[in-house]
Amino acid sequence: MADPIKNFYRYKLTVEYDGTSFCGWQWQPHAPSIQETLQKALFALTQEKTILFAAGRTDKGVHAQGQVVHVDLYKRLWDRAVLLRGLNHFLKNSGIVIVTIEAVLPTFHARFSAIQRQYTYKILHRSSPSALYDHMAWWVPYPLDKVMMQKAAECFVGTHDFSSFRHKDCQSKNPIKTIDTFSVRQNDAWIYLDVGARSFLHRQVRMMIGAIIYVASGKWTTWDIEQLLHAPKKMGGPFTAPAKGLHLVRVTYPD
Amino acid sequence: MADPIKNFYRYKLTVEYDGTSFCGWQWQPHAPSIQETLQKALFALTQEKTILFAAGRTDKGVHAQGQVVHVDLYKRLWDRAVLLRGLNHFLKNSGIVIVTIEAVLPTFHARFSAIQRQYTYKILHRSSPSALYDHMAWWVPYPLDKVMMQKAAECFVGTHDFSSFRHKDCQSKNPIKTIDTFSVRQNDAWIYLDVGARSFLHRQVRMMIGAIIYVASGKWTTWDIEQLLHAPKKMGGPFTAPAKGLHLVRVTYPD
Repeated sequence: MADPIKNFYRYKLTVEYDGTSFCGWQWQPHAPSIQETLQKALFALTQEKTILFAAGRTDKGVHAQGQVVHVDLYKRLWDRAVLLRGLNHFLKNSGIVIVTIEAVLPTFHARFSAIQRQYTYKILHRSSPSALYDHMAWWVPYPLDKVMMQKAAECFVGTHDFSSFRHKDCQSKNPIKTIDTFSVRQNDAWIYLDVGARSFLHRQVRMMIGAIIYVASGKWTTWDIEQLLHAPKKMGGPFTAPAKGLHLVRVTYPD
Repeated sequence: MADPIKNFYRYKLTVEYDGTSFCGWQWQPHAPSIQETLQKALFALTQEKTILFAAGRTDKGVHAQGQVVHVDLYKRLWDRAVLLRGLNHFLKNSGIVIVTIEAVLPTFHARFSAIQRQYTYKILHRSSPSALYDHMAWWVPYPLDKVMMQKAAECFVGTHDFSSFRHKDCQSKNPIKTIDTFSVRQNDAWIYLDVGARSFLHRQVRMMIGAIIYVASGKWTTWDIEQLLHAPKKMGGPFTAPAKGLHLVRVTYPD
């Protein structure tokens, strides 16, 4: 909707992407970013240079089914269906698709208005890799204890100091975060770890997944996770699960 | 298991593949086939020239999660885990993966012993295409009536003359086939059509899907399908749904 003073129209875009060939959401020198590719498509359609804000600044290789982005357009009010079709035309074969577009109030902010972010981490647990979904899941061919996996995931639920589960360059001032839900689903050889929180630290989800897989494969016990949550050490997590298994599935805003 | 006279060992392979870059199961002059790629991997590992038989000779672009293939090896008895790992090593990044290997009796035949073939046809039903699964589903952006879709699918269940729903070059002598099950599932924007039969004619599944989508989009009624089943015309089907949506998910054999 138009801001009566600044005279712009703000749009909320729900975006799906295959992160495989991108350097992530944010600009980097050596590979295209999601942000840059979207900006180019927006320019091609509207002839406007835009600034984009995303709910989650996903890393290189991370996928999204429900990334949320907002953008302001000044020149005209767009019909949502025309904007959707036009952008998807210019994004064709890019690995990025706009799923929905809504006109929103100028007070809406994709990043700061979000009240919940939901990620799913996908694991293929069998002796052979995937022929169809290799770039969308982490292939784990060794034994995993599903009961321990669920117990490990539950360790993270609640409010904790996640200093041991963040990237060394993480810019967040506060390492205290609250995990609302963390559960394990299974469908044949596929394991899905669903985690929801208002916000996450940089690399937090993949480092939590790394710790869970350490527990599920017997390298760690849940005690090791609890130790790191109660007495955080910088860079104390075991390892970071591969980016390709991570999917930003949904971002929630107040009604 | 070994045949005491001919002295070979027969193996049943469950195979998954991304059909996108193959010309289909069978050999063709201009693109690699699944069969040829598997034969090359088998030769690289075993130094044996093999003949492969598949439960379903899938077309160009059709995928499989559960194709079944049998092969005879003469030189030695292989440990199944070693054979599995070895073949998957030589198939790395080919788009083909061996999921399981079993030693079977010399009377087992991947094609002729099969009692049920299960296909799933995947449709993405929304206004924007898929960023992640474009090569694995048919994108349908126009309105579809789900109730009519289920009714159209049910028209095919039972024993019928499928002459109107076969490729003009189909080599089968008998156009009479029995569809055991045909159902529609939905998960958000995804529609899955599951169809099971002992066997199918060439292109039969994709031509039935084509007719179902004609009914669901209002171009046809179920009466049109029933007409073609009761008074079959050669090449009477409306159109053939794209190969990329079709997945051979499971082949069943007697215990």
